[in-house]
Amino acid sequence: MNFKFADRVDDLKASFIREVLKSTGKGGAIPLAAGNPSPDAFPSKDIHQIAAKILIESPAAALQYGVTEGYMPLREALRKDCNIRDDEDIIIVSGAQQGIDLAVKALCNEGEKIVCENPSFLGALSCFRANMLEITGVSLTPDGMDINELEQILKNTDIKALYIIPNFQNPTGITTSEEKRRQIYDLACKYDFIIIEDDPYAELRYTGRNIPSIKTLDADGRVIFCGSFSKTLSPGLRVGYVRANKEILQKMVILKQSSDVHTSLLSQMICHEFMTDYNFAAHKSELRALYSKKMTVMLQHLSKVFGNKVEINAPSGGLFVWVKLPAGTDAVKFCRAALDKGAAAVPSVPFLVHGDENIQAIRLNFSTPSEDDLRKGIDILGAAL
Amino acid sequence: MNFKFADRVDDLKASFIREVLKSTGKGGAIPLAAGNPSPDAFPSKDIHQIAAKILIESPAAALQYGVTEGYMPLREALRKDCNIRDDEDIIIVSGAQQGIDLAVKALCNEGEKIVCENPSFLGALSCFRANMLEITGVSLTPDGMDINELEQILKNTDIKALYIIPNFQNPTGITTSEEKRRQIYDLACKYDFIIIEDDPYAELRYTGRNIPSIKTLDADGRVIFCGSFSKTLSPGLRVGYVRANKEILQKMVILKQSSDVHTSLLSQMICHEFMTDYNFAAHKSELRALYSKKMTVMLQHLSKVFGNKVEINAPSGGLFVWVKLPAGTDAVKFCRAALDKGAAAVPSVPFLVHGDENIQAIRLNFSTPSEDDLRKGIDILGAAL
Repeated sequence: MNFKFADRVDDLKASFIREVLKSTGKGGAIPLAAGNPSPDAFPSKDIHQIAAKILIESPAAALQYGVTEGYMPLREALRKDCNIRDDEDIIIVSGAQQGIDLAVKALCNEGEKIVCENPSFLGALSCFRANMLEITGVSLTPDGMDINELEQILKNTDIKALYIIPNFQNPTGITTSEEKRRQIYDLACKYDFIIIEDDPYAELRYTGRNIPSIKTLDADGRVIFCGSFSKTLSPGLRVGYVRANKEILQKMVILKQSSDVHTSLLSQMICHEFMTDYNFAAHKSELRALYSKKMTVMLQHLSKVFGNKVEINAPSGGLFVWVKLPAGTDAVKFCRAALDKGAAAVPSVPFLVHGDENIQAIRLNFSTPSEDDLRKGIDILGAAL
Repeated sequence: MNFKFADRVDDLKASFIREVLKSTGKGGAIPLAAGNPSPDAFPSKDIHQIAAKILIESPAAALQYGVTEGYMPLREALRKDCNIRDDEDIIIVSGAQQGIDLAVKALCNEGEKIVCENPSFLGALSCFRANMLEITGVSLTPDGMDINELEQILKNTDIKALYIIPNFQNPTGITTSEEKRRQIYDLACKYDFIIIEDDPYAELRYTGRNIPSIKTLDADGRVIFCGSFSKTLSPGLRVGYVRANKEILQKMVILKQSSDVHTSLLSQMICHEFMTDYNFAAHKSELRALYSKKMTVMLQHLSKVFGNKVEINAPSGGLFVWVKLPAGTDAVKFCRAALDKGAAAVPSVPFLVHGDENIQAIRLNFSTPSEDDLRKGIDILGAAL
């Protein structure tokens, strides 16, 4: 049969991106390309204990169908944690990625326009493309989006939503300043659009003080906040949550119901138990210590190997360091050369809104490799340059 | 803020359906409305053992990110089980519902046409509506779709896909005969459309012989087969699979990647272990014995209470009995009256393609209630009529 696919998947870009990433994950290369938590970072013994308790004490609750909105005790714990208002609620989703996907499906028709940081999270860009949105990128400065550029876009275009990762952005590591968060929220009110605030790294701050989320500024329910257990507990469990206005959540729930019905109950119950009956705060504090140390190793070694030849974005948290390559370097070719020598890094291309902007940079992850491998990997990058 | 939602969720039908179902799940009513497996049917001790083994022996594999296509050993076990061909493959999805959703997203643009049995599975209808497909229903006869009616539709309309539950259909319990499966497949070739074969109840046959799936007739890769662990192991784990042509699966994988990234790895690993290291065949055989007995209780008691006043579809398997009410009865009013007296059943409305066809019937589930409750519930239905 000669298949005729839907327009949303007919474009080959998505597949090209997958291939780029696949080629960076090959063989025994040092994995600076991934966005995975460290394998040492999972509280495996606790999760083993929790799963045993759930499957002995309440197996039917974990194994039976659940409601689409999510496991009530977990929602309750998150509601308390977030200190939510009466017009808001929280639903559980299968990772923050699903939160983003359901949000744009609930709000945007095909062909409508979304604005985001450029570069931005690959998963979000793929999602916008699969939903046939028109994406406009806004350049990043060291404290977040270029606000003048953003307002210029808003003056000329009817924007439905703005997508932002305000803390330790993926891929650049940039954190949006408090002032810019306020400016972006004010622009959302002025030009009447929704903000999708994606905050998976919130708990992974290593230096400086926490900045209140855009959601905390939200007087009229226009911010959809996506949180996740992927970076703090486990990505394999696939549990995230969305905090938003109730009317928006109701639409997202209808869409989730006809997609995966509900998120794995065993996964949800594990998150709930860990959050309420174990020392989640201590665990997050250990994670910060572990990753902070790895980040320092990476930054020091990058500086030692590259000196002033590259521009290094030192983040205050998260999982990534963004390195701008010297003028004239092709990031894709550079990553291929590094991979041949045994280190995998991701070039800027898949994170770019159009893919052909001249931003020659690489994203380096410091959470997955050991400290030794971090140094070895960076040495290889140095040789490749 | 005055929200402007996407057209796909602006229609209130989906929400109406949810309300109908919610009202049938209230209070301590005997649950003839659900489609849940029996709480006795979960192999809880085995699953506890399996989860413990996974989280002790390979916690990092279960808790880390996985690939979108699914946990390789589970895919391998299913490939063997299905005896797949070279041009086909299997991916893991978060329940068969997600398989249906990804299939229509990969194949159908908004406004394109899909044909299905009328009545049909509520989750599939909601999914088609959320994807803004134009749905055409085909009447059911005791051995499946009315083929003349189907061909009439095909002659006059350009159909992209046909959705069918060939075994013990939800909600009617009807099984499509071998002859009709062949006729439907031949029509698919003649009129060049895709078949989405949804087969969650395949293993729950209580009488008669198994009929080969439409997928087994599929010479040119036009059948997308959706299977599930929800009815045979646990719905709460949210694990299903899709067997289809590789080119189709590739598109579905791109869409899944930007939705939930991958299915819970712990859930996938539990299914794999149970499938390969435990006696899955014996478990399914126990399930059949349990449900077959409950079905007999329901059918005998229905016949005792209603005699010839209603038309009872006695199925050969699955979870549901479909009861056509006497002429002049309003199924929604009848279900409200029964609920007031303490038994919850679902009226035909939410299963109808347009919702206003004059099919006055109710769907009764026999897997969830105890045998005593089955009798009590049917007594209440008798009193309500």
